[in-house]
Amino acid sequence: MSAARGTLYLVPMPLGSGDLHACLPQDALATVARLTRFIAEDARTARRVLTKLPLDTPIRDVEFGELNEHTRPADLAGLLTPLLAGTDVGLVSEAGCPVIADPGAAVVALAHEHGIRVAPLIGPSAVLLALMGSGLSGQAFRFHGYLPVDPQARRQRIVAIEQDSARSDCTHLFIETPYRNDQMLGSLLECCQPSTRLSVCVDLTLPTEAIVTRAIVDWRNSPRPDLDRRPAVFVLAAPRPTGPARRTRR
Amino acid sequence: MSAARGTLYLVPMPLGSGDLHACLPQDALATVARLTRFIAEDARTARRVLTKLPLDTPIRDVEFGELNEHTRPADLAGLLTPLLAGTDVGLVSEAGCPVIADPGAAVVALAHEHGIRVAPLIGPSAVLLALMGSGLSGQAFRFHGYLPVDPQARRQRIVAIEQDSARSDCTHLFIETPYRNDQMLGSLLECCQPSTRLSVCVDLTLPTEAIVTRAIVDWRNSPRPDLDRRPAVFVLAAPRPTGPARRTRR
Repeated sequence: MSAARGTLYLVPMPLGSGDLHACLPQDALATVARLTRFIAEDARTARRVLTKLPLDTPIRDVEFGELNEHTRPADLAGLLTPLLAGTDVGLVSEAGCPVIADPGAAVVALAHEHGIRVAPLIGPSAVLLALMGSGLSGQAFRFHGYLPVDPQARRQRIVAIEQDSARSDCTHLFIETPYRNDQMLGSLLECCQPSTRLSVCVDLTLPTEAIVTRAIVDWRNSPRPDLDRRPAVFVLAAPRPTGPARRTRR
Repeated sequence: MSAARGTLYLVPMPLGSGDLHACLPQDALATVARLTRFIAEDARTARRVLTKLPLDTPIRDVEFGELNEHTRPADLAGLLTPLLAGTDVGLVSEAGCPVIADPGAAVVALAHEHGIRVAPLIGPSAVLLALMGSGLSGQAFRFHGYLPVDPQARRQRIVAIEQDSARSDCTHLFIETPYRNDQMLGSLLECCQPSTRLSVCVDLTLPTEAIVTRAIVDWRNSPRPDLDRRPAVFVLAAPRPTGPARRTRR
């Protein structure tokens, strides 16, 4: 790594309407305040969040590069030009941590190839907060992103997930587009075994945050929470056929 | 949920010698400062970290319950007694996030069963920071905790992990006890395909933080970093036989 190169900081952003001040530790906020250049999925959204910080540089002078589905592989290198010239850059997500269920890995990978230092900052991740809050085991876990939309393919995937969870003592997590949350919950209650535990975590870090963990049999017998259009993470763990066992060895 | 009950806050702790002030957002620090009771794996360590915060209650009056491998299932309920009586409690980890590769899930699960509100706080997680910093895909990932110690079993597991990564476009993460890091790296370089990408992330959030991502072939041809006795996360992704593909559907 060359001392003349900038550092690529990975900057988590608030979940939903959360405030950046409430989301990042003081040191991370101070790092972000010093930056003059960012890479964002959507420059306008990023500007709106960052404008609330007391940045050292007036926001109108802060520069933004965009990395999203319209970015061609050939344009990736251009995003790194300021870093190669010695300027620190912040890669921000739309919500939560860059890279985690978010684009951004490509530019981080390219930074490594160029020997640019990469520094991830501490901040909110819906996936991680859901796993912590669920009460399901965090000794081993798998995050799937989105499951298939097609009902038949989705049911098959849910059954495969449940079987893997029982076999390998692994907790599984996945997300859904908020307007399909109710359908997802319906599929889970239809397909899963009664003793499988399911946690539904909505509006994490927001004042309306709710984390509900129950066995499928209890979900079936309880009124369903209102999930419509609320960002949700689903967390699932099936009991091992032979009873619980500690996976950890030290 | 009853309004008379306390809230169980899940409090991440610094990684290694890090400072709690540098690790938690202001709001989380303010929440922790108000607490008078904690559940910790080791009360002495937790007290040492918390004593640096300006807690509202003198640290000698703060009460600690312990949750570790000596805790019998019958004692778990006792840890919830203050919550049932209306006192907020903080569940702290030894390092990083409670529940994630850490005990604590049992008490969170019991809290849900008693209708106690569970509130995970934002803070550092070595697993998440490693995944962000690695530059490997975070669209889908699996965390294994520790791999087997036995060399033959470990090799088999590494091969299985690599095959799963190639098949399902899933990034895999695992940890090792710090004095065995070099052996782990040795096993990975021995077993994996040349094009598989491996990131080794040590001392995350500390001044000595280092994140190195290379293809196995390049790892084999480069001097190895010093990993001995440094907390490390290993991140591995094998290329799909048919080339990269976006897993995400929106």
